[in-house]
Formats: sequence, structure tokens, C-alpha cells
Amino acid sequence: MSRPVITLTTDFGQMDGYVGAMKGVILGICPQAEMVDISHKIHPQAVQQAAYVLSTAAAYFPPGTVHLVVVDPGVGSERRPVAVATERATYVGPDNGVFGLALAQDPARRAVHLTDPQYRLSPVSATFHGRDIFAPAAAHLACGTPIEELGEPLALAELVELPVASPHPQPGGGWQCAVLHVDRFGNLITNFRLPAPRQGLRIGLGGRWIEQISRTFADVEPGKLVAYAGSSGYLEIAVRGGSAAESLSLDAGDPVQVEVAP
Amino acid sequence: MSRPVITLTTDFGQMDGYVGAMKGVILGICPQAEMVDISHKIHPQAVQQAAYVLSTAAAYFPPGTVHLVVVDPGVGSERRPVAVATERATYVGPDNGVFGLALAQDPARRAVHLTDPQYRLSPVSATFHGRDIFAPAAAHLACGTPIEELGEPLALAELVELPVASPHPQPGGGWQCAVLHVDRFGNLITNFRLPAPRQGLRIGLGGRWIEQISRTFADVEPGKLVAYAGSSGYLEIAVRGGSAAESLSLDAGDPVQVEVAP
Amino acid sequence: MSRPVITLTTDFGQMDGYVGAMKGVILGICPQAEMVDISHKIHPQAVQQAAYVLSTAAAYFPPGTVHLVVVDPGVGSERRPVAVATERATYVGPDNGVFGLALAQDPARRAVHLTDPQYRLSPVSATFHGRDIFAPAAAHLACGTPIEELGEPLALAELVELPVASPHPQPGGGWQCAVLHVDRFGNLITNFRLPAPRQGLRIGLGGRWIEQISRTFADVEPGKLVAYAGSSGYLEIAVRGGSAAESLSLDAGDPVQVEVAP
Repeated sequence: MSRPVITLTTDFGQMDGYVGAMKGVILGICPQAEMVDISHKIHPQAVQQAAYVLSTAAAYFPPGTVHLVVVDPGVGSERRPVAVATERATYVGPDNGVFGLALAQDPARRAVHLTDPQYRLSPVSATFHGRDIFAPAAAHLACGTPIEELGEPLALAELVELPVASPHPQPGGGWQCAVLHVDRFGNLITNFRLPAPRQGLRIGLGGRWIEQISRTFADVEPGKLVAYAGSSGYLEIAVRGGSAAESLSLDAGDPVQVEVAP
Repeated sequence: MSRPVITLTTDFGQMDGYVGAMKGVILGICPQAEMVDISHKIHPQAVQQAAYVLSTAAAYFPPGTVHLVVVDPGVGSERRPVAVATERATYVGPDNGVFGLALAQDPARRAVHLTDPQYRLSPVSATFHGRDIFAPAAAHLACGTPIEELGEPLALAELVELPVASPHPQPGGGWQCAVLHVDRFGNLITNFRLPAPRQGLRIGLGGRWIEQISRTFADVEPGKLVAYAGSSGYLEIAVRGGSAAESLSLDAGDPVQVEVAP
Repeated sequence: MSRPVITLTTDFGQMDGYVGAMKGVILGICPQAEMVDISHKIHPQAVQQAAYVLSTAAAYFPPGTVHLVVVDPGVGSERRPVAVATERATYVGPDNGVFGLALAQDPARRAVHLTDPQYRLSPVSATFHGRDIFAPAAAHLACGTPIEELGEPLALAELVELPVASPHPQPGGGWQCAVLHVDRFGNLITNFRLPAPRQGLRIGLGGRWIEQISRTFADVEPGKLVAYAGSSGYLEIAVRGGSAAESLSLDAGDPVQVEVAP
């Protein structure tokens, strides 16, 4: 029989003992859990980056996976700890929109506010809900506790929405888009999903234009700028063998124009 | 049945193949081991930091866990390789005090000097005891070899003590404390354990004072300094949404005053 | 029964969701796989560094391990995706020489070009073969699919060789060597394998000489330069308690002289 899978996405880094403490808690509750790190290098408190990174990996996990996300600027405040079930998976973390991009692909079916103290560590600290609330909840869910036992039901409309920038159609045609994420290679992932016929589009980056969409960065010479549909379906900008973020001085949040080529 | 758990804490970083080699050795001896990384980003040879990070995570693992720690400035010299058993766990690593803070919470019951060659790789290199001595010992212990088979018994009083700074009571009242660790968020973890009634204390940091202990950083406005009991029970100093280490220019080892408020 | 082991070595870093997506794919195909990270911090597209790091860890894994390596400057071009079986292990990745140093210790027996679409995700993206081709192949191999089912057989002589610098014997005696890798501690690992009698050799580094080979860095005073046989058998240069790379300003690729002492 397959082991239950729990993924972990946090902004805790890998120097401290925070992730280790969460994994210890999980193994104490659900010893057969298979724990897989998605990322612990989300920028501190960067909810939108966490949402993007989670969305690029979550769809590839087997049905029944529990995705535990702790990027939690509001820890200790009134933000709700929640679990959200979809047809394929369960998401556990703070109710701050961090599941938003994953849920856009795999819609929420039910949600609970994680209020039942028997599924928390005791006492709950004021600063480390990852260890005291979220890890126990993920472990109980992975080992078969039904989601409704973990707390009060929550209407889906009450879940906080991710404040994510969508492409804005422009009056003269085209879209005002933005860089959603800069990856390890300096590739710029935008928030623009490429339509199936990709011909006839050009991409503007701070006055510089890329005049066509390529299939992959191997289609251009080393050192050249290239635009293509990335592995998660979004428009990406790269420099073959280099860093587009560095050569263009662009970062997450910066604007990108997409136009029909003249 | 639960799988035996082995945690790993090293200063090896994650670029080289050192951690991978240790895990390969472990799986060759104890294939069913569940290996959990606590940290591989301990500063090179920083025994006190490793001791702190281990102590924040170890208590959350299930009984029977083997904690393997390789932060080992003395590798190749005469320092002893040891295993130390407590009621809840077994610690494996160099005898340099690195288990000190964990053993303060979970006292040592017995110790052995890891001398038996049949529980080592052969030959043992002069520079990588993590792979050749400590990983095999941890794997044999996790898979059920009794600790006394791994080497010569060692009196607990012979174990090297951690040279850790404790708070010093001051003649005029209060304590001279120190920063024990700076975490990923720039929070300053001190060596001062907060007493239960926390009212009436103030914290001095290089001439600047925090006049009260809060419950959590969410109790202050973004950008403000705040002192509170951290998730491991020690006094911590943070800047909400920022880095206390950067705004105060403080690092591990720097002094912190704790006084009864006037 | 032991679980099948898959190791992962990439240049993907640990911030993005790329490694997580690969692990999700693996667990969907081979749920009982034990996945072990060797490194995800290979410098972007540094095939030779990846080859070295893999070679230091691979030999320590149990027989039957599948080593998945994705350092792939040629993704999307005509370079072949391959699997290579040895007596002890199977290697999966791009055919760019990245298995070269591991295969020097554990020779290739057969190879296949990974062409069969039923062992790939569908559709295959143009930029992320790690997820779409290599992870599925590794998972099928780990769970028992015979290598010859994954694609067309490939003659071993057709595999791309690693463009790795070997020591050059010098006319006046001695060898012109090079730094192969700088590890986390700033130790310089060279491409020179030390012969068994190590007496009578001296090491030249940019005009500076180390006059003998020591057993380990603990044989010299803190702060001093030392040469010794590293844990992987190659000549290494270290500064005890410091960084040889920093104090000598040397990096991967820089020259090292080995001479018989006068």
C-alpha cells in the first residue's frame, strides 16, 4: 500500500531547526508519512511567491497528497488556520491566499477552520503555528482523520483570496502583465498564460522588445534573450546560458507588455 | 510498524556530495531508516550553533529517534567519536559538547566511545568520519544494535561539556545575557529563559531598550522592535516584518541586558 | 523488503518547485521509492561539477540504486536523454558526460536512448525534461521496468564523454594538475589521485609550495595550509579552520603543480 504523502513549503530556510521540528511532530502522529520538501527558501513572508511555487509542483503529486504551507506573516494575529480539500488533495496552512494559484487548477470543495485543540500540540506557541497547529493537522489528515473533525466548517466564499496581479487588457490591444517569479536560473516567469497559437505576439520589457515566441531557449544563440511558454504554461523570458533577471534588471512585480506584433 | 528515524545535522552545506554519501551508507546498513534533515547549514565548525539548532528540534521527534550530528572541528585529531543514549533518543557524533543543549532537556543515561571496527566503514578516512564512523553507527543503532556493542563504555562525567554562555546575574540586579543564534528571519534568540511571570522586565541592546515583553511580534506595528518568549522558550528579539539582526547590527555572541524595569 | 532508492542531483536550487515536481512524478509512478537528494546546488549548467559531486556519493549507495541527474545545458536541443546500467546501479539523465566520473569507478554495461513515449509524461515540455522524461524513467526503473523497455539500445562508444581535465605529465617530471571542485569549506579538490607512497611529493599553487603530504588537516596548526588525500582519494588542499580557496584566490579550473620534492 502507498504511504500517505505530505509536501512542505515554507519560508523557514534550511539553517534553523524549524522544518526539522515540524517533521518530528508529523512522524510522531503519522509515522508512515512520506514527507517531500517543495521549498523552504520562499522569501520571508512572500505569500504570492509561495503560491506560485506550490502551484508549479502540486499538480504532479499523487491523489490524496496533503500540501502543508507555512508562509505566515499573520502568525499570532487573528488570521485563521485552515485546511482546504479538493478532489485531488488537501491544503493546510494560514488563510492568507497562499493556496490561490493551486486552487485555480484544482478547485476547493470544502474548508475547515482548524479549531479543535485535540489536533494541535499543547500549549500552542504564539509564534510557531507551523509546528503547533499546521504540522499536527497535516499529519492527522494524511493518516486518515476526516477533515471535518479538525474544526468548524468554513464557507468557501470566506477564504481569503490571493492578491495576485492578473494581466490587464490594454485599450490599444495587448496586455499589461507582470513578472510573477524569478527562478534560480534568472528566468522571468510572467503572469501571462500563452494562448495555443503563439504566432504574432511580441514582448516588451522596459523599452526592449522580443519579436517572437520561441519553443525553447535552445532555439536561440547562447547569450540571447528568448521568450517561450515555460514548463508551467506561463510566458517566460530567459537568456540562454545566462540570467534574464540580471541582464534586464527585472524582478518579481516588474511590468511586462504583451502585444500583437505590428 | 514504524520505521526507525535518523535525523541529520551537519555543517556540510548542500552543494557537495557529503550528506548524500552519509545517507547512502545509512541505507546500505539500515534500508528501512527514515532520514530527516534538521540542518546542513550550520556555520562551518560552529559547535554551539549546532547544539542550539539540534535542541530546538530533537524534542519533537518520536521516542527511539537517533540524532546524528557531524559538526566536527577536531576530525582526525584525538577527539572521541561517541554515542549517548537518553530515555527518549540516541545521539551520535563527535565528543565536543554538541549534544549539550539537547541533553539538558533529556539527560544522558549511558555513553560509549565508538571504537569497534566492525561498525565502521573500512578503511576509515582521516577527514570524513561522518561517512566512515558516525553514519554507520547511527544506522546500526537505528536498526537495533545495542549501544554497548559499538564500543567501550564511557563514564558520563567524561563527556566534553559545551562551552556555552549562561546568563550572568549582575550585582545591581538583572542578567548579562548573550545572543545565542540569529535565525533566518533575523530574529535574535538569546540564552535567557523567560520566567513565568514576564511582567516588569526590560531588555537592553547596545544602549537601546525594549520596555516590555510581548506575547508575539504581531502585538506591535510592522517595523517595530519586540521582545517575546520564542517557540523554544528563550527570550527572542524581533522586528515585525523585518530583521532585528540587521537593524540592531547584532550577531551571535553579542551581549543583551535583561533588567527588572525601574 | 528494501525500498528502491533514487538519488537526485540537479542544478535547480531549492527555491523553486522544480525538484518538488520531479518527486511528485516519481511518487505517482513508484510510490515506494526512497528518494535521496545528493545536491540541487550544482552551479547552473556545470556538468563537470555535477559529475564530481555524483562520483563522491554514488559508490556509497546500495546496489540497485537509480541515480537521476539533471544538469542539462542542452535541454530542448538534440542531445539524447539516456539511461546507463552498470553492475551496481543505473544512471538516468542527459547524454552530456555527467556520469563520466561515476562510470570510471563502476563501468557502463548497457545504455538506452529514452525514446519510448509510454515512459514519459505527455505532453513533454521543451524546457523541463527533468520532470517529463528523466523522473518518469527513473521511477519506472526503480520499480522494476527493465532498461531495454525504455527506448532504443545505444552502443556504449556512442555515449558523450566528459570533457574533464586529466593531470598532464611534465617533461621535467611531475604533473600539471587542476582544481576540480571547491567544496563548502573552501577546500580545493584536485584531479590528482595520490599514489600509495605519498612521501617525496610537493605541491605548487601559483608560486607557493606545500612541501609535504599530510595525513589530515589536524596535522597542522590552525590557519596553516595543508595537502592530503581527501575522502574521495584525490589530492586536496585546505587551510585548517579556514578557506584555502579564499586565502589562495583559487577556483575550479585553476592549475596545481605536483612535483617530486628536490
